Amino acid sequence: MTQVHDTKRRLLDTARELFYARSYEDVGVQEICQQAGVKKGSFYHFFPSKRDLTVAMLDDSWQQFQETLLAAAFAPDIPPLERIQRLLDMQYRHHSAVKEKTGHVFGCPFGNLAGEMSSRDEVIRARVKRIFSDLQAPIQNILEEAAAAGDLPELDSSATASAMVAYLEGLSLMAKTNNDPDVVRRLGPAMLSLAVPPA
Amino acid sequence: MTQVHDTKRRLLDTARELFYARSYEDVGVQEICQQAGVKKGSFYHFFPSKRDLTVAMLDDSWQQFQETLLAAAFAPDIPPLERIQRLLDMQYRHHSAVKEKTGHVFGCPFGNLAGEMSSRDEVIRARVKRIFSDLQAPIQNILEEAAAAGDLPELDSSATASAMVAYLEGLSLMAKTNNDPDVVRRLGPAMLSLAVPPA
Repeated sequence: MTQVHDTKRRLLDTARELFYARSYEDVGVQEICQQAGVKKGSFYHFFPSKRDLTVAMLDDSWQQFQETLLAAAFAPDIPPLERIQRLLDMQYRHHSAVKEKTGHVFGCPFGNLAGEMSSRDEVIRARVKRIFSDLQAPIQNILEEAAAAGDLPELDSSATASAMVAYLEGLSLMAKTNNDPDVVRRLGPAMLSLAVPPA
Repeated sequence: MTQVHDTKRRLLDTARELFYARSYEDVGVQEICQQAGVKKGSFYHFFPSKRDLTVAMLDDSWQQFQETLLAAAFAPDIPPLERIQRLLDMQYRHHSAVKEKTGHVFGCPFGNLAGEMSSRDEVIRARVKRIFSDLQAPIQNILEEAAAAGDLPELDSSATASAMVAYLEGLSLMAKTNNDPDVVRRLGPAMLSLAVPPA
């Protein structure tokens, strides 16, 4: 890794970590630079503003999430609906690991930013909106595969997948509010009962 | 209303309004005082800190929510499950009215604070946790009434009511992220399909 790439990577990783543990507004450029060991001038060489860093961090985090967790959860080695349960199991293990390490459930990094910033920053809002729609798409594919295999009643697969993304986000928020990963283990399977009938 | 009560009321209302439109961290005591037309010394007479104001504001907002919206939505003049749909209709109209006025969907005032503050402030987290559990209780009653009337399959009414609160919060977050109240109208009815079977 070149030094330039290494500096940028440290800024992205540090921003992700600090925003996730606290909030966007609570963390400033100065603190990000300090913790990443990067000079402020160097920060502004890579990112014109904290918002630009945040958008780059969202892109980067989402790509990592897709390539690791989502690819593993949705791999077609098990029947379609079991893949959704596997995603829930991973969500539970993630919250448990974070709580083990920090004492807190931090929730969903994308949902946290959406909740904090959507009414104040159209660029960040639009980016998280696209992430949620990128998560909805493979869930919709799974529902269609399950319906074709006769494992599901007839439903509006697009709307049901959107409902499932909303529920996933609601679960993460409840786990955070209760500081209890077990919320996901206990209430997660109900996600498979969500159904929007065809119009 | 005495002047003391009037000052306190203005501080509570202003804090609620500013936190809801933006965030906890983005709004300081000075700005709250300025907008409420209250001197800083007077603020600290009523509230030792911004956190104390926030807890009082949460109590006050939740009481108002219960006495107005929730009482109207859950009034027993219609069958139990229709009351849940009436709450969803109210949520939709609320987001629509706020968007009409401000251009934005602000989401759920309780969920916003929970998402922003739960990993950083145990007092605020505990207060919102109690609010969610106070919302879960009447939903559980409605589910039990519906089950007794034969309108529902056998289910774990407590866990299903918790799942419904999670879904409500997820819907508000999605409406905020999409800046579109229609998310609630389109996906809301699926809440009634959520079911956690008995253990």
